[in-house]
Amino acid sequence: MTPQVQALLFDVFGTCVDWRSSIAREGEALGSKLGIIGVDWLAFADAWRDQYQPQMATVRGGERPWVTLDVLHRAGLDAILPAFGLDELSPADRHELTLAWRRLDPWPDVVEGLTLMKRRFVIAPNSNGHIALMVNLAKRAGLPWDAILGAEIAHAYKPQPEVYLRSAEALGLAPAEVMMVAAHNGDLVAAASCGLQTAFVPRPTEHGPGQTSDLEPEHDFDLVARDFLDLAARLSESRSREVVSRES
Amino acid sequence: MTPQVQALLFDVFGTCVDWRSSIAREGEALGSKLGIIGVDWLAFADAWRDQYQPQMATVRGGERPWVTLDVLHRAGLDAILPAFGLDELSPADRHELTLAWRRLDPWPDVVEGLTLMKRRFVIAPNSNGHIALMVNLAKRAGLPWDAILGAEIAHAYKPQPEVYLRSAEALGLAPAEVMMVAAHNGDLVAAASCGLQTAFVPRPTEHGPGQTSDLEPEHDFDLVARDFLDLAARLSESRSREVVSRES
Repeated sequence: MTPQVQALLFDVFGTCVDWRSSIAREGEALGSKLGIIGVDWLAFADAWRDQYQPQMATVRGGERPWVTLDVLHRAGLDAILPAFGLDELSPADRHELTLAWRRLDPWPDVVEGLTLMKRRFVIAPNSNGHIALMVNLAKRAGLPWDAILGAEIAHAYKPQPEVYLRSAEALGLAPAEVMMVAAHNGDLVAAASCGLQTAFVPRPTEHGPGQTSDLEPEHDFDLVARDFLDLAARLSESRSREVVSRES
Repeated sequence: MTPQVQALLFDVFGTCVDWRSSIAREGEALGSKLGIIGVDWLAFADAWRDQYQPQMATVRGGERPWVTLDVLHRAGLDAILPAFGLDELSPADRHELTLAWRRLDPWPDVVEGLTLMKRRFVIAPNSNGHIALMVNLAKRAGLPWDAILGAEIAHAYKPQPEVYLRSAEALGLAPAEVMMVAAHNGDLVAAASCGLQTAFVPRPTEHGPGQTSDLEPEHDFDLVARDFLDLAARLSESRSREVVSRES
């Protein structure tokens, strides 16, 4: 029998928060302040996010030691600014824009859904974002985490197995007692290969109206839910079924 | 000028929770279940806690690698059981008793005080307790932490400087932007020597009615408060003063 889930680990960028429109909004605000016109800030957000995997790959491949996402976000930002005619942006403005990743808005179902799930489970982010980023983001967005887990305590980046395994270990739980929740098939496949249970929650507009990836679960995950409220309800049902089956 | 405090780090055992009467209660419950009579469970709690520093000293001194408090609590328990006539306690009962450190009651002012302080500051434990212990304790006691910091992320035990410095670094803050809150002079002296600000909150019955240590602040700490509600009020005052002095 599958062990009962004790803790839920969450992907954050894309799954809990809408980084694309939030980064576009932050860029637009900086642009207004500086009198910059003619930048497509949604395209800017996409281009910046496109730097995410290649920047992390330098750590995963051992090309550089583990550094925080602040460092990788800044490197990605520096790389894309010329293409948007923003080469002149000052170091102070680049720093401020890098911190925009702490000011991302949650999807509308997230705070209520997490609050419900927190009643029965330990809930924590299992993100590639470091502790300072995750704490500040959670405080602004109202995400009621029990702990901040993820890349920083493992000194590795998802989908490296250390990130999933170290988070389960930090909670004193076996991998199978932990469920990874994400809007990304790849994240869940990596979690499952470490022995975690998995829940897929689609975020079909993470990449905007023309999104083509991660619209559907592509593997046999333990749960599939419409959003965090639906996930809370399904977890509550599956726990009730377990209680009934233990009592009968 | 002293930098403005952004985050508050808290000692937990003794400062936030009353380990002595909670452990005595847990011992008594186990005793009743097993039909054990004649044990002074408060003396048992004191004897167990007396094992705390010597057990951690084996890690600090490099005699063994960093292990969690579950391991050290169990070693301390095994050491004291004979003196209480409890040598026959089964491994399962010893394990269950070790987990009693996750079921400690907060002092009456703690949950309300932390909730107030959380509005303005990042709040986190900076305890020698590991993440699993701190998460479970917080969930039962209702401690509304923003993150779980402390010994496990530093792989060291207070008063080793790594624990204070690593917690500040994990929050992306300079040591002087962080205030350590504790009922123990030694903890605060170590924090101050790492550059943290300090607040002393006495817990005059932590060790029972005959307590002789840590009844008063013995050094020049940044704040001294009666309890967490008083601390919340003093922090709020000192922030208002800073605002006034910046505006005038």
